[in-house]
Formats: sequence, C-alpha cells, structure tokens
Amino acid sequence: MANMNIRDIAKLCGVGVSTVSRVLNDHPDVNEETKQKVLRVMREHNYVPNNSARNLKRIKSRTIGVVVKGITNPFFSPMIKVIEGELTRRGYAMFLSQADDYEDEIRKAAELQMERRLEGIIFLGGIFHYEKERLSLLEVPFVFATIQVSSDMEGNAYSTISIDDTYEAARATRYLLELGHRRIGVLAGAFEEQSINRLRLEGYLQALGEYGIHYDERLHKNCNFTYKGGYEAAGSLLRETDVTAIFAISDVMAIGAMKAALEMGKKIPEEVAILGFDGLDITAYTHPGISTVRQPSEQMALEAVTTVLDIIEQKSGHRHSVYPCQIIERGSTHPARQGEGPERGKP
Amino acid sequence: MANMNIRDIAKLCGVGVSTVSRVLNDHPDVNEETKQKVLRVMREHNYVPNNSARNLKRIKSRTIGVVVKGITNPFFSPMIKVIEGELTRRGYAMFLSQADDYEDEIRKAAELQMERRLEGIIFLGGIFHYEKERLSLLEVPFVFATIQVSSDMEGNAYSTISIDDTYEAARATRYLLELGHRRIGVLAGAFEEQSINRLRLEGYLQALGEYGIHYDERLHKNCNFTYKGGYEAAGSLLRETDVTAIFAISDVMAIGAMKAALEMGKKIPEEVAILGFDGLDITAYTHPGISTVRQPSEQMALEAVTTVLDIIEQKSGHRHSVYPCQIIERGSTHPARQGEGPERGKP
Repeated sequence: MANMNIRDIAKLCGVGVSTVSRVLNDHPDVNEETKQKVLRVMREHNYVPNNSARNLKRIKSRTIGVVVKGITNPFFSPMIKVIEGELTRRGYAMFLSQADDYEDEIRKAAELQMERRLEGIIFLGGIFHYEKERLSLLEVPFVFATIQVSSDMEGNAYSTISIDDTYEAARATRYLLELGHRRIGVLAGAFEEQSINRLRLEGYLQALGEYGIHYDERLHKNCNFTYKGGYEAAGSLLRETDVTAIFAISDVMAIGAMKAALEMGKKIPEEVAILGFDGLDITAYTHPGISTVRQPSEQMALEAVTTVLDIIEQKSGHRHSVYPCQIIERGSTHPARQGEGPERGKP
Repeated sequence: MANMNIRDIAKLCGVGVSTVSRVLNDHPDVNEETKQKVLRVMREHNYVPNNSARNLKRIKSRTIGVVVKGITNPFFSPMIKVIEGELTRRGYAMFLSQADDYEDEIRKAAELQMERRLEGIIFLGGIFHYEKERLSLLEVPFVFATIQVSSDMEGNAYSTISIDDTYEAARATRYLLELGHRRIGVLAGAFEEQSINRLRLEGYLQALGEYGIHYDERLHKNCNFTYKGGYEAAGSLLRETDVTAIFAISDVMAIGAMKAALEMGKKIPEEVAILGFDGLDITAYTHPGISTVRQPSEQMALEAVTTVLDIIEQKSGHRHSVYPCQIIERGSTHPARQGEGPERGKP
C-alpha cells in the first residue's frame, strides 16, 4: 500500500489519529503496548511520516546510531571505542546496535531512527550494494564506515569511508607473487556474496592474472570469518593441494590457518607462507607474527564521526573517503622477520 | 510568588533539585522529614508541578544501559552480543556506553540514567568495592555482571553476577602445583588495585600457601591487561628468574607471554608452562593451545539481563549469583594435549 497517511496507520491499529501523532512525536502519554503496536504497523508498511509537520515538533536527540554487523568481530571493537569517544567529545551520544548475519541492518537502522530519534547513523560492516528502495527508508544522514557501498541511489545521498578492497587485495597477492609463490590458496567466502569478500577475491584474481596464472578453484576455500573457519579450510588446502602460500582475507581466518599449518608440522614461512588482512593487534602476538594488510581503522572511525556530524551540522555534504592500507611484513611470510619481537615486526 | 518552578522549591527547602524531583516522583530514597518539608513548602506556595515534564521522566523508556569498562577487551564482546539479543527478545533496547580506565563508571551511569531515562543498568567490568555514597547516585536497578562487588551499601540494593575469582585462581594455581611446578610466575596488576586483579592474586597466594611456598615478589610481574603487557612481563620473568610456569590472570596477557617464550626458543610446556584465565575463543587457536580457566560468560550475560528485568518487572528482588568455571587443559600446560586440534583440546 503506497503513500499511506497517518489516518491509514490509525485505522490499521484501531486507534485514533492523535494517538499515532503522539507516537510519532515520542509523546510520553501513550500506552507502551499501543506505542509498540503503532511502531510495528508503521514498519510493516514502510510508513514515512510527513517530515515538515514532524520536524516542527521534533527535539534534537543529539544521538548517533551505530549499527554493527558482527559485533564480536575484533576489527570493530577499537573503532567503536574511537567513535564513542569522539561523539562524546562533540556533545553527542552513541546508540549502539548489532545486526546478526541474517538480519537486515538497514531495516534495523530505520526502526532505530524513529524509536531513538537518531540524528545520524554509522554502519560498521554490511554488504556493498543496497537497493535505493532500501536506503530510502533512512531519513537521517548515514555513513558506511568500512564498506565501499554502491547503490543505484545518488552518491551524494550517503557517505562512505573505506579502503579500496580490490586494490589492496591485489597488492597483497602481488606481494606473495613477488616472494616467488605461484600456488597461492585463498580463504574467503563464496564469490557470489555481496561483501568485501567479493571485492578482495577480485583483487586476488587480478594479481594472479598479471602473472599469467589462471584461477584454480581447488585453491579457493569458502569459509566463514572465524578462527574455526580458517583452521578447517587451511587444513584441507594443505592436505589436498600443493599450495606454498595462503592468503586469508581476514586476520581471524589467518590465525586459524596458522594453527592448522603448525599442527601439521609445516615450517612457516618456508613450507607455507600465511598472509592475513585487516591489521588486528593480535597478529603481532602469534608466533611467528602474521603478515597482514593493515587498515587505518581508528582513523576511519574518526572520519566516520566527522563526516556524519559535518552533514548534520550542515558544514558539508556527503563524501566518499578511501584510505590506503599498509602491508605489515612479519615472520609468517618472511624468514628474516622471525624473532624480531612484535614491535619491531611492525615496519 | 506565582509560577514557581522546582528550583524555587528546592531553594526554599534548602535541598537539591533532585531531592524535590524524588519527592514528586514518590521515590523511596528520601528522608521522611525532608519529604514532609518539601510537601509542606509546595502546599504553602500552591506549587503545581509541571506535569508534562514530570510524565516525561515517568514514562517507561524500556531501555537498559550497559556500561562497559574497557570495550576493547575481547572478553566483553560476546557478552554484549548476548545482552543485546536477550534485551531485544524481551522488548527492551540496550544503550551501550564505554568508560575509559580513568573514568568513573558510576558517575557515567548516573548521567545516562537521567539523559536516557534508563530503567536499569548493567555494568561490565569495574572495581570490586564502591562506597555507598557513589552507588546511591543510581536511582534505577543495577547489576554488576562480571565483578563480585562489595559495598557498605546493603546487599539487597544491587545485584552481582560473577565467578568466585579467588577460589578459581587458587584452583588454577593448584592445577600447576599438581603438575609439579614450584616456581610459578604470575602476571597481574599491582596488589593494591581494587579489581579482579587483587582477588585472583589472593587465590594464587592461597594455593602457594597450601603447598608451603612463600610469596616471592620477583615472580610477580605487574603489567597492564594487554598482549604487549604480557609479552614484556613474561620476557623479563623468563630472563631474570627460574620460573617453570607462568599464570597470567587474563588470556590476553597469556597470549603475549606465550609469544615471548616461543621467541626465546623455550619449549612449551616442557621448559615453561603457561596458563591463562577467562576462556577466550582465541586460546584454542594459538599453537600450542593455551590452557585457561573458562568463565561461563554467555550464561552470565543472560543472567544479567534476567536479573535486571526481573527486578524492574518486580518479579524478584536483588540477588548475587556466582558461577563455577572450568579449567580447559591444552598444550600450553600439558604435553599430551598438543596436536589435538582446537576442538578436541576442549575437554
């Protein structure tokens, strides 16, 4: 049902128009059950209230929603800390929410913006393509802070802060090729998945192509982004193929992969080199240390806050920032880097 | 005097605005004499409270504050996920806030309860003793979810969900003693610190005492709860003393300690055994796996939600729940546990 108005919502809920109005304006004098029912019906029908009328009554909440896809991912924890610190410094509060793998983070954010009267939204994690229809559920400025999102929505309707996943993954793979590796296994999700996964896989393929190496599907293991996923996938790669290097597109998987290789008695990096991605602190504290592609995640978190507040405070429009990464070379790919200690292992 | 406001009443009574507010809201925590005085002054001046402002405070926000001391601690991430999931399932929202090391988490929570109209508060991390004066800033039910807090406040004024840190640390140390170790180093903070740190150190001392071993300060290294802290402290222990085992009172430090030992070419566990504490997933994916004392953290997170909501919904009063831990034996302390894989390493 398109273009619903407040009368339609009231009718569907079996309440009066003034009740719906009170819910919209977060008025205290509404029965909680009724309020939840009205909010639910609005969500179900993608009802978008008439902004001009609403804004008149709307008080600024000075709250920014942070919607995290995968809150247990250690990559996000330092970012959340930076985001909250910076928001507080600038007089805003953070409302943090997690979306599970199966959950729709845009819908979740759309609910929160109403219930929590958010002034802006920062997404951590997610996929790289959203339909315009979905994004238009969001009425406040929003920023994707780790993903190069593309959409059929105009680019000036949202901001992105990201790395160039394909470029960096190609550079990482090239680094292994330059070390002499030709049989390079890759740990990633399925190619079809619309996430950083696919962008990084494309980088891997691109670098192989430059060296005239064809994609060998046996060297590509699908796995989930967990220690266990990396452990099991690397185990089968090492048993079933002749890989001399493994490129894990996340450090968490690289840690699992190294465990598998060491347990099988493989010498690292002589018999198998391992390269991760993200730049988690823990990679400096495995033995040997894990070489990785470090994202400037804290800088990106700071930029996410600056961007969303600049837009809210009308200091600037939407922007798309791309940050360069750095390859950190450690003992997992380079024998000379072994035994250097975690700090010296960071160039 | 017409159009008096709450500030005028407070001034006339010689009390703070928050006291008048508590009287207006019939809050139990007001001295009866003060309450009668405030009511008398109101009557005398025909003071009519501003109802909309009053209702705003009274309306249920269905929001629980979660105040985390150390949000980058990987121990808390899965707990936060469980807490948000369970709150959502029960129709509540989570408002997450971090307190830095130097910040006063109680004051932070006290501010949030007002600004965010919290109905309850869950603390993750913190210290183990709070003055009654500090805790009385909190006007809504609160639960300490990882710490055995003690206070001069009555025990029925707050809830705790914890492990018995001293008992479990003693058991862990005893486990190393039973393996034959007599020179057991310990990585922890300073003894004076009022945190789990001190409780766990007491357990260490208790177990040594049972075996007639005196505390040797050279074997106790102060360090912060980071990979780097553990790495540096274990490095000096191994260079300067004859320890045959290291008990790190957090897994994060144990990971750093193992890195130091392996880099020095020590055989683990033959030349030095390493035991952690907490039960982080990552401990199963180092090589060798790190033996640890596993806290049932997800169960504790669930209990934190149940407790705070039971109190809010007046289904029960405050309670103090203590959960037992489990020693997970892996290759870092037991040779036979090496090469068993991360899953089989969990008994």
